Amino acid sequence: MIPTLEWTQEGVRLLDQRLLPARTEYLLCRDVPEVAAGIRDMVVRGAPAIGVTAAMGVALGVKQSRAADLPAMQRELDAICSTLQATRPTAVNLAWALDRMRACFQSAGREPFDRGRIAARLEQEALAVYAEDIAINQAIGRHGAVLMPEQGRVLTHCNAGALATAGYGTALGVIRAAVAQGKKLEIFADETRPYLQGARLTVWELLQDGIPARLITDSMAGHFLHHGGIRAVVVGADRIAANGDVANKIGTYSVAVLARENQVPFYVAAPVSTLDLSLASGEQIPIEERSPEEVTHFQGAPVAPAGVPAANPAFDVTPSRYVTAIITEHGVARAPFEPALKALAGKSRSAGRAVRFRDC
Amino acid sequence: MIPTLEWTQEGVRLLDQRLLPARTEYLLCRDVPEVAAGIRDMVVRGAPAIGVTAAMGVALGVKQSRAADLPAMQRELDAICSTLQATRPTAVNLAWALDRMRACFQSAGREPFDRGRIAARLEQEALAVYAEDIAINQAIGRHGAVLMPEQGRVLTHCNAGALATAGYGTALGVIRAAVAQGKKLEIFADETRPYLQGARLTVWELLQDGIPARLITDSMAGHFLHHGGIRAVVVGADRIAANGDVANKIGTYSVAVLARENQVPFYVAAPVSTLDLSLASGEQIPIEERSPEEVTHFQGAPVAPAGVPAANPAFDVTPSRYVTAIITEHGVARAPFEPALKALAGKSRSAGRAVRFRDC
Repeated sequence: MIPTLEWTQEGVRLLDQRLLPARTEYLLCRDVPEVAAGIRDMVVRGAPAIGVTAAMGVALGVKQSRAADLPAMQRELDAICSTLQATRPTAVNLAWALDRMRACFQSAGREPFDRGRIAARLEQEALAVYAEDIAINQAIGRHGAVLMPEQGRVLTHCNAGALATAGYGTALGVIRAAVAQGKKLEIFADETRPYLQGARLTVWELLQDGIPARLITDSMAGHFLHHGGIRAVVVGADRIAANGDVANKIGTYSVAVLARENQVPFYVAAPVSTLDLSLASGEQIPIEERSPEEVTHFQGAPVAPAGVPAANPAFDVTPSRYVTAIITEHGVARAPFEPALKALAGKSRSAGRAVRFRDC
Repeated sequence: MIPTLEWTQEGVRLLDQRLLPARTEYLLCRDVPEVAAGIRDMVVRGAPAIGVTAAMGVALGVKQSRAADLPAMQRELDAICSTLQATRPTAVNLAWALDRMRACFQSAGREPFDRGRIAARLEQEALAVYAEDIAINQAIGRHGAVLMPEQGRVLTHCNAGALATAGYGTALGVIRAAVAQGKKLEIFADETRPYLQGARLTVWELLQDGIPARLITDSMAGHFLHHGGIRAVVVGADRIAANGDVANKIGTYSVAVLARENQVPFYVAAPVSTLDLSLASGEQIPIEERSPEEVTHFQGAPVAPAGVPAANPAFDVTPSRYVTAIITEHGVARAPFEPALKALAGKSRSAGRAVRFRDC
């Protein structure tokens, strides 16, 4: 599998997902503003991948620091984190990763000031975030594979695959693990307008792995849940509130309602870093509104009359009553979600924003 | 409003809806194969418009006949109807219009054979089908307008407007009539992948009429039904079974389920010619499967990896339990739909395939 992102001595190298599947090109982000632009402009996307990229962005910014003392470096770190935090509002993994890098900085700052040593510690931490993300996804896959049918059709929405993470994927990690266990799955992939992550990314990943895939428009999901023999739905998440409400790519709520209406289980696969236990419910999750041109245009060409107003919420919130289970690296949560998610978060040494990180 | 289609002495003139909204061009269909291609290739689309076009296609074919006697002309008529019937399988208005033209031919054939007189009678009948369709839509509008809220957001899917009919529209006819009565509506239009009838046609029609419109992707409909203050949904239909099950553009079923889940009324607006009382339920309605390239490509450009399989059912069936009411030119049917639809069909002198037409 082609890597989604890489740490290099020149900067953060991002697979430019805007060009897939037509072209496989990398964009080298040489400083914090370029990393921020890469996240904001969706060169890289997917909550876990955004988190890893942000961690690398912090490491890159601190590496380029010329601060003379710790307070100056702290001010630079604050500016770096503000710049990166402002890129996209919904995925909580971004804030999680920044908090983790801040905690590492605090820890490193307790020793006598040494710019190079602090930078090295942050670089090491970013690489740990990267490596852990892959291991986390593999663990999500192990916990989720058992929930997949022995054979049959499974629906997914958007891309929660290797391209949305450091590697392996969350929802697609569950599918990969199930297929590796010998389960015979055919994946129905919603194209996921307006940005077409399903058509451009999910189907591309699955074809590369030789997993049977079928592309449908978002409008067909209900029809195939009703009549198409779909046995399960599995999606990723951008933020999960304490009560189990799930923010994920726009259209997820519709799929969840249609799954329940047709007695098809609806699974959410996400790392514990996607939990935001500080929010009581999904209603408090900020929903990013993106440019209307993503709706009125298609790869740069207009498809609607000039000047028509369009709405473009990038995410929606699925109330937890539609969620069969949430699959994390520490196990599977079911209703009542609040105690179940709290217990899973407690198993993690990096379980959400409110929890202390270990010394880096 | 620019006419959707016209009868001319040179043939049937169709507004090429494939080019909208970028270009307003007409395609002149000079013989039956060209009319058939116009329907099959979606130059014209929408169940009522397909019916009117087919009626004109029959009139055109008979006008060009050189048959020496009635049996020869009957054979030509059979071939014309076969060609036109084979274009698209789901909209029953097509079969309805062909049946009506056949009945007119039978009636005209009872008199001494006169090729020119028969052709003139069929031309007159096709023009009557055209004119009646507009009047029918205005009646649908009158019956439906009262069901619209005094003010607020109304969602529609696909295009059931002037462009889907001889004029005025079914679902958009209801909206036009409500706005004409002074109701303050804002229309949310699903873009309606894969063919984008919502983005290209519905929004274009509404802008031309000065009715406030907002374009959304199909995946956003659920979100706005849940949180966006949508007060009603109104859509068209391609075929309605005796029990009230509705075949309509793919994605309609999803919208209907999401509307019910959020206690939003879901209305279907269609002429009685859309009823197919010969079918007990929607499960018997044939669903057209169109080319996968409509899904894998976007206006000719690929958006998915080459070779990925795609499904492309053009329609789905919404079980009548999700339908709040069916609005026809003769009044509004509510559950239990079977007797209600039968009663409405009985009010029509051209009420579906099983009913005799008047002499033309």
